[in-house]
Amino acid sequence: MRSIAPGEELIYEFRANFAGVWMYHCGTNPTLHHIANGMYGMIIVEPTEGLEPVDREYAFVQSEWYLGEQGQPASLTKAQASAPAPDLVMFNGVGSQYLDNPVPIDTGERVRLYVLNVGPSVDSSFHIVGTIFDRVIKEGVELAIGNPGNWGSQAVDLSPAQGAVVEFLTAEDGLYPFVTHAFNFVGRGAIGLFQSGDGDPTN
Amino acid sequence: MRSIAPGEELIYEFRANFAGVWMYHCGTNPTLHHIANGMYGMIIVEPTEGLEPVDREYAFVQSEWYLGEQGQPASLTKAQASAPAPDLVMFNGVGSQYLDNPVPIDTGERVRLYVLNVGPSVDSSFHIVGTIFDRVIKEGVELAIGNPGNWGSQAVDLSPAQGAVVEFLTAEDGLYPFVTHAFNFVGRGAIGLFQSGDGDPTN
Amino acid sequence: MRSIAPGEELIYEFRANFAGVWMYHCGTNPTLHHIANGMYGMIIVEPTEGLEPVDREYAFVQSEWYLGEQGQPASLTKAQASAPAPDLVMFNGVGSQYLDNPVPIDTGERVRLYVLNVGPSVDSSFHIVGTIFDRVIKEGVELAIGNPGNWGSQAVDLSPAQGAVVEFLTAEDGLYPFVTHAFNFVGRGAIGLFQSGDGDPTN
Repeated sequence: MRSIAPGEELIYEFRANFAGVWMYHCGTNPTLHHIANGMYGMIIVEPTEGLEPVDREYAFVQSEWYLGEQGQPASLTKAQASAPAPDLVMFNGVGSQYLDNPVPIDTGERVRLYVLNVGPSVDSSFHIVGTIFDRVIKEGVELAIGNPGNWGSQAVDLSPAQGAVVEFLTAEDGLYPFVTHAFNFVGRGAIGLFQSGDGDPTN
Repeated sequence: MRSIAPGEELIYEFRANFAGVWMYHCGTNPTLHHIANGMYGMIIVEPTEGLEPVDREYAFVQSEWYLGEQGQPASLTKAQASAPAPDLVMFNGVGSQYLDNPVPIDTGERVRLYVLNVGPSVDSSFHIVGTIFDRVIKEGVELAIGNPGNWGSQAVDLSPAQGAVVEFLTAEDGLYPFVTHAFNFVGRGAIGLFQSGDGDPTN
Repeated sequence: MRSIAPGEELIYEFRANFAGVWMYHCGTNPTLHHIANGMYGMIIVEPTEGLEPVDREYAFVQSEWYLGEQGQPASLTKAQASAPAPDLVMFNGVGSQYLDNPVPIDTGERVRLYVLNVGPSVDSSFHIVGTIFDRVIKEGVELAIGNPGNWGSQAVDLSPAQGAVVEFLTAEDGLYPFVTHAFNFVGRGAIGLFQSGDGDPTN
């Protein structure tokens, strides 16, 4: 790895040896400041034979925002706090964006999410209100569909730089909030909605 | 889901499709305030064929308390802090209650606990001093009794809204503290005692 | 358990019934203060038949330091904070020590780490920059080498008092940082380096 100047480009070529939901990020000093300013992304590597087809897939990246001065980058000072206190916790870079624009799914279809917590510093407890994950692959460890006992999962704990695949179905039309269930962050942007069908359970 | 006025009732009927140790809670706005005031509970759903019989079972719900004014509800302002700082962390709603009234178990018997972290915002690291879990089912993923290698578990990490089944035995009479091993909270109520047999290892 | 005076000794004899990466610590009151002052250690118990031979093994204990007055023990007051804010987060007791003295490994050899988070209060997200864990045994639950799908792991979440075995290989000579990916702590000592081969990828 090496740093490059603005306007330069650097091409990485690599062989993806392991399946997973991976975080990549800038490593230029101070890395914390770069991550806190959004210099990160998700790489999805499927198993060689691929994951089973599903009806719909989405990707969600949970991140924190430590507000700097208006018009300025994120505050490195705030991000360095030993007890992290982000101003916002977000999915895909904008707080609460999926409240105004719910994410469409259809009732009864199998939905797969790729979920990554890029932090930089706070854990996630990813949860969807109103349904249960029947499949979770967290950092390679799987709760499989049709497992003995038919156990399900209500929340997936992801520390910074952990990723997971989760799958679920909705039983009826409606609006299904998704959050990190670290509930102090829900009012700070860490909430969105899935709209299943027409979003109205009374039809 | 819909809100109801004090004194009204609302009956939910649902089919429990997945085994687990589930959290339920009020979804009325602001949900954080309701959870922080104790509007939550645990639902245990066993596999269809049931869990294996054990000698004794208990249920523990870990929660936080953000003290409001004397005689008033929990403080929403405190609960909303981005760096959560609960005044108390408790098992089953009262800080340190099982120090004064230890939870009885018998030496050599198999004990099963259903453990749920309702938060609202802080992780748990559930641990019993003096013994080891030989079975853990966390959000459906199992460390089985008699697993290859005979691995055991000393602590179960539960983010808010995660639950687990844990099993253990005690080898001799005595007092066995249980805590969240996030040790800053132990002095804030997150500790109790199991009394195995007569509680005296010298007999 | 009982307390002893300085200079006294107390011998524990016990049978190690379960494999794991275990934390032991002083239980004298206030336990939090004792842990925060370094009164802890790691016990590695291998399965009866042993773990498979590897080329190299290291042990890392992540801990927090709450600075007291100069020349005095760690600050109990700071350690008791409900929102834990350690001054330092360290591997093996000294912040950033493996930046100055990288940990030697060889390119292409299988390396096994025993990783324990002793806290007392903060979670770890153990990660190595530039490689992927192909084996993780966290609190007994295993992501096995050659698992179906060939899933790997980028970070291991360890709450206080949790331990794990992780294995990896490096593909080329170089310096590979290891951190807790709770990145606010990286600038507070929670970083070290592996030097693979001569540490220079351009040779």
